[in-house]
This record gives sequence, structure tokens and C-alpha cells, in this order.
Amino acid sequence: MWLQKEFQLSARSRGFHLITREIVEALPELKLIQCGLLHVFIKHTSASLTINENADPTVREDMESFFNLAVAEGAPYYRHEDEGSDDMPAHIKSSLLGSSVMLPISNGRLNLGTWQGIYLGEHRNHGGRRRILLTLQGE
Amino acid sequence: MWLQKEFQLSARSRGFHLITREIVEALPELKLIQCGLLHVFIKHTSASLTINENADPTVREDMESFFNLAVAEGAPYYRHEDEGSDDMPAHIKSSLLGSSVMLPISNGRLNLGTWQGIYLGEHRNHGGRRRILLTLQGE
Amino acid sequence: MWLQKEFQLSARSRGFHLITREIVEALPELKLIQCGLLHVFIKHTSASLTINENADPTVREDMESFFNLAVAEGAPYYRHEDEGSDDMPAHIKSSLLGSSVMLPISNGRLNLGTWQGIYLGEHRNHGGRRRILLTLQGE
Repeated sequence: MWLQKEFQLSARSRGFHLITREIVEALPELKLIQCGLLHVFIKHTSASLTINENADPTVREDMESFFNLAVAEGAPYYRHEDEGSDDMPAHIKSSLLGSSVMLPISNGRLNLGTWQGIYLGEHRNHGGRRRILLTLQGE
Repeated sequence: MWLQKEFQLSARSRGFHLITREIVEALPELKLIQCGLLHVFIKHTSASLTINENADPTVREDMESFFNLAVAEGAPYYRHEDEGSDDMPAHIKSSLLGSSVMLPISNGRLNLGTWQGIYLGEHRNHGGRRRILLTLQGE
Repeated sequence: MWLQKEFQLSARSRGFHLITREIVEALPELKLIQCGLLHVFIKHTSASLTINENADPTVREDMESFFNLAVAEGAPYYRHEDEGSDDMPAHIKSSLLGSSVMLPISNGRLNLGTWQGIYLGEHRNHGGRRRILLTLQGE
């Protein structure tokens, strides 16, 4: 079985956000899969997807602090600056964190660890709604 | 053909460790696949999986040195510190490196480059055993 | 449907390079897939694959500047130095960025965002030709 579905995440503020529930609710067909994989792909180059801790919101805050320091705005060597000082760092964060996650499915559910959730990394100050393409496969 | 198998890696010290052999030995069904993919997923948010050089142990040591400097313990802005000073850096390293690798299979074997191996990144001081979920697909 | 194909990218200078066209041209079978996924895997540990902005070449230049500063050559703690000062940083960049990308396919084409392209990260000064293994699946 193969299935694809494109949908839009609601607009988020800059930072990291748990989106596991939105993904699962967009995909009721998950429960038809006994063994499979879900590919979650973000169709943008200034936001990212990653897996991390799903319980304590300070993890998301510390992640944002870390990446803002590690990938500075306004570095003197940047040449791609026309779209704002948050743009080039957003591209770099997108490649450091990745544009997709691949998630195992078992018995009709995502088979994540107890503390794992799916994060949206919104790296622009005003990124707006983000398009997500889900590709589900399995049996 | 689809197959899933969960197993535990033996506990490792903090650092990077080659686990290619443990993965392959956990999955004798690999030899049934002529063309396929193996998804290796770690069900934790303070350890990671990546692919890197499989021959010289100093590569793993230099990787550990690099990530310990790049993602410091005790950064003054961290708010998530209740579980120890190695915890928040472990979460960040987990997202920088990733929670899974996807490996091509050809003619019953992982089709990696000559110098490629699968690394466990153990980012906690005492991470204990780590649960791995393998999802094998192919024909 | 499953299909695998190995081919070599032409040698590139150190830096980031758009390779979307080379990938697509290597795989005319893409047009047979209504819904599927393409796994693109690089069989080396000193180069990487990532997805990023496909229009402005200064994004690729700024990425190269960023990663050269973030992952320095000649760090005093490196022990793996026999193959040149660009080698250990290349291994680290390879794990930061990743050895593969997984791309959705819809209606016979890669279904990327308008501004997304596939980057080769060539992290050696003289990396030569790089072997790519494509694994295509879908229906």
C-alpha cells in the first residue's frame, strides 16, 4: 500500500514546535498499516523536521537558543542577505537538521520511543504556513 | 517483503561506536532481499545514528571531541538541566546527527561504500542499553 | 516496483553543488512511478547530500563558508590527520549533513518544493568522482 497526502501546518513562531499530533491527525490511514514507514517531508528550505524530546518545553527553547548561537545572523561573510538577516541562517539550519524524517509504523501506529516527538524547526521570523508531504507505505 | 525487528544494543560508553556488525547479525533476513532498503531507528532522544569511517578508531575519537566542543555542557542559557549536564547537549547532538539511517540493500547485503560503517552516537555518560527498531523492505 | 542504479557524479571542487539534474537524468524510470520514494545515497564518508535552495548560488557559497568555520581544519585535538588537514573536517561535515536524502515522487516526478534542490557537499579539496546509489520504489 502506498499513499501520499500534502497538507499545510498552521503558521508557527520562530523556534521548535511539536507537530506529532498534527501529522497523525492528517493521516487516519495509519491504522491500516501493520508494518510500514512514514516519510514526512517539508517542501521549504528555511524550516526543518527532526525528532526530539516530547515532554518538556524547555528542550525546544534550549534547542532554539543553541541553534541561534551556532548559526549566527549577520555573519560578515554572508553574501545571501537580500531576504533578511534570518534567511541565510534558516537555510543552514535546514541542512543541519534535515528536510524530512522517516518513521516506523507498527500495528497501525507510529512506533516511536516513549519520549520521542516530531519537531518542526521554524527558522524564519515569519515563515507562515508550511507545506508537508506525507508518503505512507507498508502492508 | 516487509519485516520489523526490535532489539537492544549493548550499553556503550559516551562516544561514537561502530555497530554495523550488531545490526547485520540481528537481521539474517537481509540475505533474502535482492533490492531493498533497511531503516535503522533509535528510540531515544539522547543518542544518535550516523554513517562514517569504519577503519580508524581515531575518527570516532575526533568526532566525540568535536561534538563535545561544538555542543557545550553547562551553557548559561540552558533551562533543561534537571537530568544532568550531559542531557541537554545529548538532545542537541541527537538532532544534529539524526535518529535514523536508511541503508540500501543489494543482493542480500548492505550496499555501503568500502569505508562506510554505522555509528551509534552515545551522548549520555551512562546511557545504558539502547533500543533499535529495524524495518526491512524489498524484494 | 523496485530499481537500483549506481552511477558516478563528475568530480567537483570543494563546496556545495546542485546535482538535481544529474540525478533525474540518471533515472528515466522516474516517470513510471505514480507514488513513491527515491533514496539517494553517497558511498563516501567525506562528502554529503542535503536539500537546500536551488536558485541563488550565493547560498551554496555561504554554506561552504559557514561549514568551514564551524568545522575547522587543524584543530589541536584532531588525531586523524594522516590524509590531510581537510580529511577529518570532511568526515564531521558528512555526519552533520548526512549521507543520503529521501525524496518523494508523485506522478512521475520528484515532488520537491519550488525552491528545493539536491546538493552534493564535496568536503575534500580533491574528492574526485563520487559514487551514488539510487534506490527507487513505488507504484
